[in-house]
Amino acid sequence: MLRLPTRTLRSTFRSLSSYGKVDDKIVSLICNIVGPDNVTTSESARNLHGTDESFHPTRAPEAVVTPLSTSHVSEVMKICNSHRIPVIPFGTGTGFEGGVGALYGGVCMAMHKMTEIVEVNQSDFDATVRAGVTRHQLNDWIRADGLHFPIDPGAGASVCGMCSTSASGTNAVRYGTMRENVLNMEVVLADGTVIHTAGEGRRPKKTSCGYNLTNLFVGSEGTLGVITQATVRLHGIPEATAAAISSFDSVQNAVDTVVMILQCGLPLARIEFLNSDMISACNKFSNLQLKEAPTLFLEFIGSPSGVEEQAMLAEELCVGNGGENFSWATEHSEREQLWKARHNCWYAVKATYPGKHAYSTDVVVPVSHLPETVVFCHELAGEMGVPAPIVGHVGDGNFHCFLLSNQDDETETLRIKDFSRKLALKAQSFGGSCTGEHGIGLGKRELLIEEVGTGAFETMKIVKKSLDPLLIMNPGKVIDLDHLL
Amino acid sequence: MLRLPTRTLRSTFRSLSSYGKVDDKIVSLICNIVGPDNVTTSESARNLHGTDESFHPTRAPEAVVTPLSTSHVSEVMKICNSHRIPVIPFGTGTGFEGGVGALYGGVCMAMHKMTEIVEVNQSDFDATVRAGVTRHQLNDWIRADGLHFPIDPGAGASVCGMCSTSASGTNAVRYGTMRENVLNMEVVLADGTVIHTAGEGRRPKKTSCGYNLTNLFVGSEGTLGVITQATVRLHGIPEATAAAISSFDSVQNAVDTVVMILQCGLPLARIEFLNSDMISACNKFSNLQLKEAPTLFLEFIGSPSGVEEQAMLAEELCVGNGGENFSWATEHSEREQLWKARHNCWYAVKATYPGKHAYSTDVVVPVSHLPETVVFCHELAGEMGVPAPIVGHVGDGNFHCFLLSNQDDETETLRIKDFSRKLALKAQSFGGSCTGEHGIGLGKRELLIEEVGTGAFETMKIVKKSLDPLLIMNPGKVIDLDHLL
Repeated sequence: MLRLPTRTLRSTFRSLSSYGKVDDKIVSLICNIVGPDNVTTSESARNLHGTDESFHPTRAPEAVVTPLSTSHVSEVMKICNSHRIPVIPFGTGTGFEGGVGALYGGVCMAMHKMTEIVEVNQSDFDATVRAGVTRHQLNDWIRADGLHFPIDPGAGASVCGMCSTSASGTNAVRYGTMRENVLNMEVVLADGTVIHTAGEGRRPKKTSCGYNLTNLFVGSEGTLGVITQATVRLHGIPEATAAAISSFDSVQNAVDTVVMILQCGLPLARIEFLNSDMISACNKFSNLQLKEAPTLFLEFIGSPSGVEEQAMLAEELCVGNGGENFSWATEHSEREQLWKARHNCWYAVKATYPGKHAYSTDVVVPVSHLPETVVFCHELAGEMGVPAPIVGHVGDGNFHCFLLSNQDDETETLRIKDFSRKLALKAQSFGGSCTGEHGIGLGKRELLIEEVGTGAFETMKIVKKSLDPLLIMNPGKVIDLDHLL
Repeated sequence: MLRLPTRTLRSTFRSLSSYGKVDDKIVSLICNIVGPDNVTTSESARNLHGTDESFHPTRAPEAVVTPLSTSHVSEVMKICNSHRIPVIPFGTGTGFEGGVGALYGGVCMAMHKMTEIVEVNQSDFDATVRAGVTRHQLNDWIRADGLHFPIDPGAGASVCGMCSTSASGTNAVRYGTMRENVLNMEVVLADGTVIHTAGEGRRPKKTSCGYNLTNLFVGSEGTLGVITQATVRLHGIPEATAAAISSFDSVQNAVDTVVMILQCGLPLARIEFLNSDMISACNKFSNLQLKEAPTLFLEFIGSPSGVEEQAMLAEELCVGNGGENFSWATEHSEREQLWKARHNCWYAVKATYPGKHAYSTDVVVPVSHLPETVVFCHELAGEMGVPAPIVGHVGDGNFHCFLLSNQDDETETLRIKDFSRKLALKAQSFGGSCTGEHGIGLGKRELLIEEVGTGAFETMKIVKKSLDPLLIMNPGKVIDLDHLL
């Protein structure tokens, strides 16, 4: 296998003895760049920025910096690079895999003050935003132009944070994931160099111009550089939308319906699956009376007559597979009512188990293996005596099982890790992946190796070490530091 | 900027004095692996494999190897690696940028005997093919299952060759490019290591599992490794298809219609633009009577009533922008007749200028800049006194202008290079790219630097040098060797 001179790297690391500390001198240097209002060492700020939505414990950074510009980011990176201080980029903290924890101390680069929407090109269906802009802010900005940025991971994430984890969500089946929707990014590398992955100001819909750096940085979880700007595809708001739901007597029948709908080439915008446990939680939370059975939630877009035709064909396919209670609607308020259960899954589960911490698995399998994977998940939950509410983006074969624990109870935490690992290994055995959209972060570093194998893992290590030779970019995430030394 | 120790690399290179030669001993070593039928040094085979469809002169390799398996490729790579012999992967030789020329001698790895269709998963809409399988062979295999692999660059390219240049073509506006349609690849690295970019046997529709190696190798043009297998997305053959054409009095009106159609969210399968020169060539070649004016060719897919509705809406938009002679059809033979001009562009141009060699430009611009880019292209052609037949995948802002020359006339060749460069710089000035789907190869190495800028170019160099430290993978392509030493 190709290798960089690891011996040199290891001795470099050791000769520096460890990462540099963020002492008063460093804080003062950073303060000279970003100003006193934009750097803090307060405990509350540090704790807030060392925590995400996951069950991984808070790992507070030594300082939190809020740059106002790419130049700020670059200058701060140069200081950190010359003192070998870890840098952890922070978007909105809505990640699920502990990606923002400062395992080795260092500086959190919190991007929320870079809020400029740089450019919207209505005729070209693209927009360029700075790192602090959330998907909601972008959508509010462009709605009146008849455009939307459809990638919807649920949380109010920042667009650049979504780049970082290669996020997707409910409508990936229609619009793809961030991989397919990012045209260009501005990235500050470990040594402070500013690059534009597709060239400054470029926004072609497609290109074969050299190596695809854009998609190398999408999904790199802050371990190769700080994403300071992204240019993304926009889409026209569809003329008409129809929502539908139907319940089934088995997971198999529900998923068979999904496969048939996909095979018919119905232009779905979303197709979501909730199991009985999840419907039960949603009924309680939102005061609904849905049948507590495996249920599909569908959404169609197109022309008014087109969505009607699609909904009727979908009904036929649902009923043919034993689907019951098929109902559909095109009016906004009725659609919202139909999909209410789906929209509130996460909160419904958290409310059903008050005081518990929820963790979301994220496996993805080829759709043909979805029924047996969901059944395996149920059985695993039964064995372990834990509830298993499931919500799935079934058009992609991706589903989430929400696992509950007391964060302070080590036995429960270990059980969740064990559950998550067993489910991931099962998904991998079916040709799937341990993570569809949440990333590796802290929690799945061993699963990454299982999934891609030694050759690809060594290649990833080479990429990491060549672009971040001092290992200061979000160290310990994606690839364990031990594997890099 | 981050750098590998170039001094060491340069001295390594110089101490080896140059690349190794493919002498009798090497041929014999390779013969021991692949057998005598699968290695040749005959002049005709060498010349054939040093040529593509471009105007770049033939650069014959020293030997042509036709591996039968990944293990063959790996073992041959190990020999080449230990003797520092260049390796140039060869698919079908249908490239446009001189990607297969053996600039520094070496071995051509011709993949056409690895013809296995490994797996087709009908319910999951994916297929895995070895490197020799062409897109036509794959489509013939899966048609009866109601599936197709829609990426259509025109030529009968191999699927893995299409991976290599990030190919696309007429229906990228609907299905995306190879970037969006490759799920996994088996790649043999420079030292013979076999990797699976997403892990062996994995075929999830989406994944956030570590760095996106799949899209690092897609579009790498054989400079990072040999692609030996690809897993690609398939799509359902649509229930109904409608084709339409309409002519316009100006490029501006034609392109305005495209933008409006895109904004309406009409689910187009293809939208192609031909200018007057191209229509003229096609009329002569195919004995048609199309009006010699800027013309749009459209294709819609969906349900029977859906495509009818789309065609009618498209007609309304065309007529609203001054479109004439709008006609549409749904029957296969009528559709073929309507699209005949579009299908035969390349041959029509070659037939119009017998004895001339044709070169295809490949710029892509944001759609809003398409009219002025096409006008610029016309003006440039006028200044230079050359014809400028144009065909464009206008939904993506990508178009090709076919330039004719006598290959032996150096003045004509230089004029074409000058034309191509000026057009590319104009496209870049509009935020576009010098290549939408043909790649960099030999012809656009300087344009790559112009397009991505120093920072991204240095990053690409780091990636190249870290994965191919002896620079044996297709040397001189994408990045000039001088930049790597």
